[in-house]
Amino acid sequence: MTPAARQVPAARYGERLERARELGLRRRLDALLIGVGADLRYLTGYEAMPLERLTMLVLPAAGPARLIAPLLEAAPARSCAAAAAGLVEVVTWQETDDPIALAGELVAGSPVRRTGRLDAVAVSDRLAAAFVLPLQAALPGARFSLASAVLRELRMVKDADEVALLCEAAHAADRVVAAIGAGPLAGRTEAEVSREVRDRLVAEGHETASFAIVASGPNSASPHHAASERRISPGEPIVLDIGGAMGGYGSDVTRTLWVTGGDRRREPGPEFRRLYTVLRDAQAAATAAVRPGRPAEAIDAAARERIAAAGYGAAFIHRTGHGIGLEEHEDPYLVAGNHEELRTGMAFSIEPGIYLEGRFGARIEDIVVCCPDGPDLLNEGSRELLVVDG
Amino acid sequence: MTPAARQVPAARYGERLERARELGLRRRLDALLIGVGADLRYLTGYEAMPLERLTMLVLPAAGPARLIAPLLEAAPARSCAAAAAGLVEVVTWQETDDPIALAGELVAGSPVRRTGRLDAVAVSDRLAAAFVLPLQAALPGARFSLASAVLRELRMVKDADEVALLCEAAHAADRVVAAIGAGPLAGRTEAEVSREVRDRLVAEGHETASFAIVASGPNSASPHHAASERRISPGEPIVLDIGGAMGGYGSDVTRTLWVTGGDRRREPGPEFRRLYTVLRDAQAAATAAVRPGRPAEAIDAAARERIAAAGYGAAFIHRTGHGIGLEEHEDPYLVAGNHEELRTGMAFSIEPGIYLEGRFGARIEDIVVCCPDGPDLLNEGSRELLVVDG
Repeated sequence: MTPAARQVPAARYGERLERARELGLRRRLDALLIGVGADLRYLTGYEAMPLERLTMLVLPAAGPARLIAPLLEAAPARSCAAAAAGLVEVVTWQETDDPIALAGELVAGSPVRRTGRLDAVAVSDRLAAAFVLPLQAALPGARFSLASAVLRELRMVKDADEVALLCEAAHAADRVVAAIGAGPLAGRTEAEVSREVRDRLVAEGHETASFAIVASGPNSASPHHAASERRISPGEPIVLDIGGAMGGYGSDVTRTLWVTGGDRRREPGPEFRRLYTVLRDAQAAATAAVRPGRPAEAIDAAARERIAAAGYGAAFIHRTGHGIGLEEHEDPYLVAGNHEELRTGMAFSIEPGIYLEGRFGARIEDIVVCCPDGPDLLNEGSRELLVVDG
Repeated sequence: MTPAARQVPAARYGERLERARELGLRRRLDALLIGVGADLRYLTGYEAMPLERLTMLVLPAAGPARLIAPLLEAAPARSCAAAAAGLVEVVTWQETDDPIALAGELVAGSPVRRTGRLDAVAVSDRLAAAFVLPLQAALPGARFSLASAVLRELRMVKDADEVALLCEAAHAADRVVAAIGAGPLAGRTEAEVSREVRDRLVAEGHETASFAIVASGPNSASPHHAASERRISPGEPIVLDIGGAMGGYGSDVTRTLWVTGGDRRREPGPEFRRLYTVLRDAQAAATAAVRPGRPAEAIDAAARERIAAAGYGAAFIHRTGHGIGLEEHEDPYLVAGNHEELRTGMAFSIEPGIYLEGRFGARIEDIVVCCPDGPDLLNEGSRELLVVDG
């Protein structure tokens, strides 16, 4: 099936808008105010440009949903799925208008408010302060909260179309890992390999390559190391953490490679082998722990206990995973303290790592969907240490 | 000179931090709270990843500047220019810590506050609501405002290094326009040409290609048309609006092309020729109007008056330009109502357009620096209609 065939049907946006409205009402919200980003795309299909000009979906507790857009974005705004289907009405503003005042009027003028006092609105989590603070001034009576309280309930649980898109993206990223793992790597710079990763992600169907971490030698001990001009040498590991978006949905996969350059004396030593085995078992244990009803933090604990038991507890310096969908990182987060129960359809990374500063590190990451009977792994590449001779 | 040689010297960050602090004090701000983005890069040199985890520069009215960073970003945070030079102290937080509480403590615990009441803080304009609202809850006594009130004063006026970077980026983008204008274009899709633009921007030294608008035929009448699968035909215009970043500083250039496919009968007709001549003269008049002390809106008016006088007033549906620097769009904006006086060192686009919906449109854009005696045009390509035979 082509990505185009996987586009979300227009009726789905109607359902999402209605569910968001209902959940907002339960929280006594007068309106949801959704700026540019994944929330807007989820609710309307509109992939708006992130501009300093205000674009905002105003979804009141009652009355029509409206999409405020700058006049020069009128054409793309009106052609988004929800607008084309008549689910939202596009309201444009001109360069010398005040779009914040317009948003305030649409909230205050909604049917639910004509009979009462403005109590509470929720703004999308990514909305910039440059819009939040003026909106607070324009709606002085309203308590402001984050729209994620409502939208996370919807966005966390993926439908079949969304899972299919995540799966396509995962498989495409797997193919890129396999191509990079085929070498050669020794003698190339991290930046060169990173560029190859980005090119390959796009060639495999990604709209964008969002990140292409190539962390070699001691850099592998920095989880978010950006690819540098460092030249990769035989006898060291590479943490390869790559991803992008296909049909809007993210890929995110990490494999740890070891470069020998064809020199058998440069194969991984016993210490790295041991570290890697601990990590692999921890990642497998965390994955096996996935099932509906289990708290998110239990998945983190499953990995962390094994890593700690092997003496590497202090070297696992990040959470075990993050949700993934229209954003690379979204709810649910697999982290101590998150009691959120996993549900069927939740999709997230499982990516423990062990980092020995100044020496080396390793990480293994898959995207996993929580299914009724346990985990469904979207990534299919081997999780064994990938020894590269070239 | 290579881009690397143009890196901002570390001492410059010290000057910027001190000036920001002084300007903040004048506005009676207790602290500037600067999240990930251009403001952070400007003040510290730190090009942080935009994560859901909080990274924040806390610059109090007195006392040390501190950079809050997630533990797993410790390495890149500590290696940024300002941290490496000892100008800011990096404070890390772990996955289960509360970074908002940490930011609140750093503000409330700053020397200036030990003697008094917390009155006012400013947050960076791009800071996400997911951080703004919790910060407001953590600092209940403080009035929140936008840091741009302070930082725009600094960032609007470019120093020689910044102008040099903008100039390099402009020349690189000019070369891409020239390559695309050399054709062939007829028979290719907008998306194909857009991909070529992106590849060429990177090949010419851009770190990223941010946008590559290829709007052909009737699409040229939509100012922010995204490249589509539409196939370019002889006998129609293309608005080519492209840009990215080099050394962090943006390029942004627009030229209007006309594709004949080698068929003389497909050359532009008198109506398009007339429209284009009006536009070219308006763009030249706006550029010529640039000089220190003139209000930003006067540059807009210079273009708009000429376009209106020719009967196209309603077809020029956007402002004349935007500032450019570490952000593609930043202060100052050349728009009616903006009385800000131009100053030497300000850099901005001048890009009037005329759009006849359903038919065709045209736009011409240069990046211009305001110099003591008038405009300095960074883009050097011809502003005449570019007729492409291929």
